[in-house]
Parts: sequence; C-alpha cells; structure tokens
Amino acid sequence: MTIDKVLDRLSRDETAALERLLDLVRIPSISTDPAHAGDVRRAADWLADDLRDMGASAEVIATDGHPMVVGEIGSGAPHLLFYGHYDVQPVDPLDLWDRPPFDPAVEETAGGKVIRGRGTADDKGQVMTFLEALRAWVGVHGQAPCRITVFLEGEEESGSPSLIPFLEARRDRLGAADIALICDTAQAGPDRPAICTQLRGLVGEEVTLRGADRDLHSGFFGGAAANPAQVLAGILGALHDTAGRVTLPGFYEGVAETPPEVLEGWKSLGIDAETMLGEVGLSHPAGEAGRDLLEMVWARPTAEINGMVSGYTGPGFKTVLPAEASAKVSFRLVGDQDPQAIRAAFRAFVEERLPPDVTARFSEHGGSRASVMDTSHPVFTAARAALDAEWPNPSVFVGAGGSIPVAGHFQRLLGLNSVLMGFGLDDDRIHSPNEKYDLRSFRKGARSWARLFGELAG
Amino acid sequence: MTIDKVLDRLSRDETAALERLLDLVRIPSISTDPAHAGDVRRAADWLADDLRDMGASAEVIATDGHPMVVGEIGSGAPHLLFYGHYDVQPVDPLDLWDRPPFDPAVEETAGGKVIRGRGTADDKGQVMTFLEALRAWVGVHGQAPCRITVFLEGEEESGSPSLIPFLEARRDRLGAADIALICDTAQAGPDRPAICTQLRGLVGEEVTLRGADRDLHSGFFGGAAANPAQVLAGILGALHDTAGRVTLPGFYEGVAETPPEVLEGWKSLGIDAETMLGEVGLSHPAGEAGRDLLEMVWARPTAEINGMVSGYTGPGFKTVLPAEASAKVSFRLVGDQDPQAIRAAFRAFVEERLPPDVTARFSEHGGSRASVMDTSHPVFTAARAALDAEWPNPSVFVGAGGSIPVAGHFQRLLGLNSVLMGFGLDDDRIHSPNEKYDLRSFRKGARSWARLFGELAG
Repeated sequence: MTIDKVLDRLSRDETAALERLLDLVRIPSISTDPAHAGDVRRAADWLADDLRDMGASAEVIATDGHPMVVGEIGSGAPHLLFYGHYDVQPVDPLDLWDRPPFDPAVEETAGGKVIRGRGTADDKGQVMTFLEALRAWVGVHGQAPCRITVFLEGEEESGSPSLIPFLEARRDRLGAADIALICDTAQAGPDRPAICTQLRGLVGEEVTLRGADRDLHSGFFGGAAANPAQVLAGILGALHDTAGRVTLPGFYEGVAETPPEVLEGWKSLGIDAETMLGEVGLSHPAGEAGRDLLEMVWARPTAEINGMVSGYTGPGFKTVLPAEASAKVSFRLVGDQDPQAIRAAFRAFVEERLPPDVTARFSEHGGSRASVMDTSHPVFTAARAALDAEWPNPSVFVGAGGSIPVAGHFQRLLGLNSVLMGFGLDDDRIHSPNEKYDLRSFRKGARSWARLFGELAG
Repeated sequence: MTIDKVLDRLSRDETAALERLLDLVRIPSISTDPAHAGDVRRAADWLADDLRDMGASAEVIATDGHPMVVGEIGSGAPHLLFYGHYDVQPVDPLDLWDRPPFDPAVEETAGGKVIRGRGTADDKGQVMTFLEALRAWVGVHGQAPCRITVFLEGEEESGSPSLIPFLEARRDRLGAADIALICDTAQAGPDRPAICTQLRGLVGEEVTLRGADRDLHSGFFGGAAANPAQVLAGILGALHDTAGRVTLPGFYEGVAETPPEVLEGWKSLGIDAETMLGEVGLSHPAGEAGRDLLEMVWARPTAEINGMVSGYTGPGFKTVLPAEASAKVSFRLVGDQDPQAIRAAFRAFVEERLPPDVTARFSEHGGSRASVMDTSHPVFTAARAALDAEWPNPSVFVGAGGSIPVAGHFQRLLGLNSVLMGFGLDDDRIHSPNEKYDLRSFRKGARSWARLFGELAG
C-alpha cells in the first residue's frame, strides 16, 4: 500500500497538528496534585474528542483515580494496542522556567525549532505523533491500517495506582491485541531512532530504625545507648561489596549475562563515560567492576540510597544521639529478579543486622519487574523497517535504566510484548524546568508511525 | 560564720528567685542560630544587670561571637572563679514540646514541682542557684564571703568559638583565681549530690560528600554514577568494629584503663542498664564489649553520628540519586586523647575511602580535651562538707560523659582546677523537647552554694 500520500498529508497538515499539540499542552494535567484533577479530566476529554474526530470510538473511563481513555478503530490483523499518557509532572521550581510551563510556544534553538512547555516531550508530544499518523492514514485511506486500540493513561507520573486493576478488569478486551506499541522513550540520538527492548524494574523501600524513645544527649548516653544513625549507616554501607556488587543474599537470582552481540550493539552507540557522565560533572563509571557503562545502567541491577535522614541536620552542631534514622532505598531490577523476593531480602538483611534496642519499620513504595521483550515478533521487524526508511541512521535496539512499569504490566497481565518506540531526546529536560520537544522529533515521529502502518497494512 | 540567716533569707526570697529564673528562661538565647543573636545579647545584659543589682561590678564583653559576662564582687581568699553559661540548645522538633519552650511555667509532676522550658536545667537554672546564694549572702552579710569572679558564657551550646581567645587575653585577670566552680553537671540522684572530677572531651566534625553536579535520576544513572549517600554510609558504617571499638587509626592513643577502685566506687552508685537506659526505652549497653555501663559513658571514648542527611527525605518516594550527602559526627574523648589528632585521623579516614568522582569537605565544630581534676585542693573538702550538710545522702565523686570543655580550658590556659558541682538531674531532658528543672534542685542547689560560702568564709 502506498505510503507517499499519507506522508504528503502529514506535511500539509503540519501547522494544524502543531496547533493541536499546543492546545493539549495548555491543559495543566498534573496528576500528582489533587488541585489539578479537573485539568487531568479535561485532557482525557480532549483526547477522546480527538479520537472521535478521526472516526474512532472513544471512552473516558473513570477509575478510583484519574480516568483512562480507550479508543478503538479499524479491523484486521495485527491488532495493535497503543499506549501513552496524558498526565504530566509538577512544574516546581517555577522560577527556573523561562516561560510559563502551560503556555507553550515554538522557539528557535541551536538544535532547531522546539516547543517549550511541561509535557511537550513527556508524553503529550509523543502521544500526538501516533494520533497524527493515524489521522493522516484514515484521511487518505478512509480506514485504519489494522485494528488499533488506543489506551491513554492519566496517572503515569503519579505511580499508576489504577493501572493494574484496570488492566485486570479488561484483560479480555485489551489483551486481545497482538502486541503493544508504547511511545514514551528516547531516541538513541537526534538522527538515530531506537527501540527499547529491555527495561529495568524497580523496588522502592523506606526503612526507619528506632532506638531510644527520644533524642538523647550524646554526652550522657554516648557509648551506652544504641545510635540508630550508626546502625543504619552500617547496614546501608554493607549493601555493596568492594567490587560494587549488591550483597543481599539471592539478589542476583534471575540475572543473566547480556549476550555479547547485544553488548557490541550498545558499544556501537558511542556512549562512554565522557559523553554520559561528563554531562553531570562525573568521569568514572561507579557500578560493578568490569562492566561496560551502558551495561551498568541497562542490564545490571542496583541498590541505591535515594534519601537518608537522622538527628540534627540544621546549621551548626548539636550533640544529639538521634532516636530515629531513616532511608529511602531503591533497587533497579533486571531479567527475572522478583520484586517481592528482593523486598523481603532487604528487610531480612536489615533485621539481621539490628543490635538489641533497635527496631526497624518498613514502608513499601512500589515494585515492578524488569521487562525484556521477545523481538522475534514480526511487528519488531516492521518497526525497524519503518524507522530505517525514515531516519538518516539505522535504528538500534537499546535498553532503559529507568522503569516503564506499564511494559511489565502488559507482559504479565495481558501477555503482550511491547515495541517501545519513542521519539524523545535525552536533552528534552523531562521532569525538569524548561521541558521541550523538538519539532523534528514530532514530525519524523509521526512519519515513522505512518511508515509502520504502511508496513503492517502491506 | 553563721549560715542560718542566709538559708532563711533564701527561703523567704524563694518566690522572687523563681520569678527571676522564669524571666531569664523566657529569653530564647539559642547561640547556634544566628537569628537569635539579639536574644543571646539580651540574656547577657539581663545577667549583668542582676549582678549589678546585688552589688557586683559587671561587664558584658563583646567577642567575635556572642558576648561574655564578667562580674566581680568581694575580697579575700580563696578567690573563686564561678562559671556557667546563659545560652541554650535549639528547640526542634518543636511539635514534641508540650508547651512553648520559651514560655516556662511551674508544673506539678510525680517527682515534685518542676519548671518546664528550654534552658531551665542547662544551664540557666543552675547558674541562678549560684547567683541566688550570692544574693542572699550579700543581703545578710553586706559583702561577699570572699573574692568571687562570675564568668558567664554565651556560646557553650555552639562549640565555644570565642572562649579560648577570651581566656588567653584575660589570663592575668581570670587566672588570678585559686580555683574554679562550675555549675553545669548532674547530681548522682535526686537525694545524692555529686562532684564531677573527670569529664570527656569532644571533637565535632561535619563532613559533606559531593558527587555529580546535580541530583540525578536513578533510572538513567543508577549503577553508573557515584552515589555520595552510599559512600557516606559505607564510611560511617566502618567507624566501629564488631566489638564496638572505634576503628580510626591511633584513636585509643592516650586512653588509660580506669583504676579498679574508681570503677568500684562507680558501681556503688547502683546505676545499671535498667535505671539508666530503661528511662529512655532502652535496655542494652551499646558500647565496647566487656565494659561497665558507667565506664562506657565516663571513661571510654566514642564516635557518634549526630546528624545525617542526603537526597529526598519528604513524604513518598523520589528515585533521585543525590548529589550530596552530609553528616555531623562527634567524638567523646578521655585521658590524653588529642582533639586535633583525632580530627585529622577522621578526615584521613574519610579521604582514604572516597571513590573517584566523590569529594569531601569538612567543617570543624569545636574540639576539647578530656579533664581529670586534682581533688586535693581544700575547696573540694569544703564543697563536700557543704553538700553533706544539705543533702540526705553523702556526696560522691563521679565522672561525666558530656564534655564541659571550659574545665579543660581552665586547666590548660589558667592553671585552675574546677569543682564541678552541679544541680541537674539525669531526667531533666536537657537538649531534648520538654526540658525541665526540679524546684528542689533549684532550692537545695542555692542552699548548697550558701553552705560552701559558709565553709570558706568560716
């Protein structure tokens, strides 16, 4: 089926497509802030209307949190489940933005034209690459290229509390798809598209150690009373061995070595300590001894302290012997590591190291498995062909160090592999002030989806 | 010289004395917080006025930090140098106080009447025991019992940065005394007075480790970027071995074993884990294996974490990889341990354990040697006689786990021994929320000083 007319139509419709994206970005759909619940709902309605405009059926489905948008269009194999999210991160600190985060505008930059605003790259701009391609295809052909279910979430930036029950309740409908397409990741570079085929999972834990029933004077009690800060430091300090490996018993169960050809592929990306760490003032890969840098962040599990507090932390000095010490600790998971087993291993690791008089309490802050996709599915082949036709450099399979829990949920709950084909750039400043989205990513992203439709409708 | 009239006068003046103390406690003289500098000055002025009211000459002498108050009264031997401090600890966490910390009031408790408020016991109440005794003596006799120099500091709770230069500059004037009296310690029990003859020293250090030039996303960078929180935990966790000994090289140089007869004397006080630790919800002595409880706090050196902070410590979870991690650490010193050598050993200990990309900066928060007094001076004999006449149980010589650096400075810079005769109780909650001072300690403390004046004027 010829794709040229669809690409032409995308070109002719570019100004209107940009206006649509600006319109969507103007809705401050911050899901973590209850004050913006109405705006989140507004963004959901906007997207459902847009889907209906192009001939899809669309529902805004209430949850205990923010609503989900589910649209249906087309018929025939393969049945694609497209996922994106329409909620955005908070904007603080507001004074670091060069313009109001929800009053987006096109700016000229050294790297080309960009749209500046919260959610432009994460994930509204990326969602719209898909919807614009679909609109153009339907406009030219009068129908969708195949059966497509569009599934848009409004809680991705606030921990997706409704996602699992929603998927479980609609396993028949959503799980009927053949494969998922997820558009919420980054390219390998401005000219090099990427499909992310493995994502790390995440376990978040908070531990609070308690000793005496109040803060004590370290003169009176120092040397006689248990110091929870000292106990916590000892425990957290023992989480890694001198080679940078995590010491939790059983931690590496389910962790496989990355195949040499995959490691070679990653090496070809030319990302090294200088390019990746130099950016943030560092120079030495700090992970497990003997591993490549990208392997450390994409294919190896970690234990990290994300926060830690005890005793007096204000200006000056206070010789207090703290009653409590707490830490937020997270584990990035790979392969078949089991979040619940790792949470249990951490808790046992802490409990075993508590001296008399010190007790621990734990809070759970989410857990998700790593996802490794089966790339033998024909849609992967089609996706690479589409990308390779559109972009100057051939596409690559990459990993992601951060978790995209939905990909894991699709695998586990719906039995679906995901093609994580994202059109963001590493410098998009997502989650930070002055988030932007390159117009080139927007344009070539939409064209890439259109080409994929062409491959599949073949 | 008869003491009865002085004791009578103290009894008659009790209500006014209490009002004076409440007045002084109302001044929030927190020396470590620059915002309270004016309040510290106000407390100094209040005390100088009070000294002048009783016929002493008094000066408020500026320093680079908070001022010193020096008063002079009387003539004749022995020349006593009385020391106390009028600054107080910070009050946070404020929500754990049952009443505003600087709005003191008398409360009925199971143990009798107490005054509740920051600084009531440490050290304003104790300072006022001496001034009330002096006021009463002068009121009855028309003159002081002997030559007395009153020296009140405003930086004791913030590391006494001005004390050494102040003493050095006034060595002739202050060092002319025969002996110092220091009122800033605890009794051995509600009915048993104590003179403290050995005090631990203190080294305060703050260390901040820095990695990347900003907080990082632990998904993107976790496993590749150095995590200063993790490095700090490892270093602080290595400060003690499994037997509770401090691992800094050279740390135990100058630490002697306590003579068995001294340990026996301490045992006779009947202070055990149940009485001392049970009070604060603990039960197991946490210091060096094989040591007695009082030995741990009076005669053994320690390393303690007093505060620690890094990364995200608010509600919920943030997968941040922190750019910085810092800790406030203190060392309690005994015998001949050298504060500067221990500070240097700690800094070297940290520096040696830094991985690439992590740097440390240090701030000094005071340092003082331990002090052991020569108890053969006749004022010690007079002090014990005064205490034994006033209290139900005979006085004892004890140690103190807290540092009272001034005692060391008096020894080293002025050549003066100190009689550390304090009227606090272990349950006064000094440095903690709900600090209190027993009215009985206040009354019998003042009467004890009056009796000492009687012994010396005899």
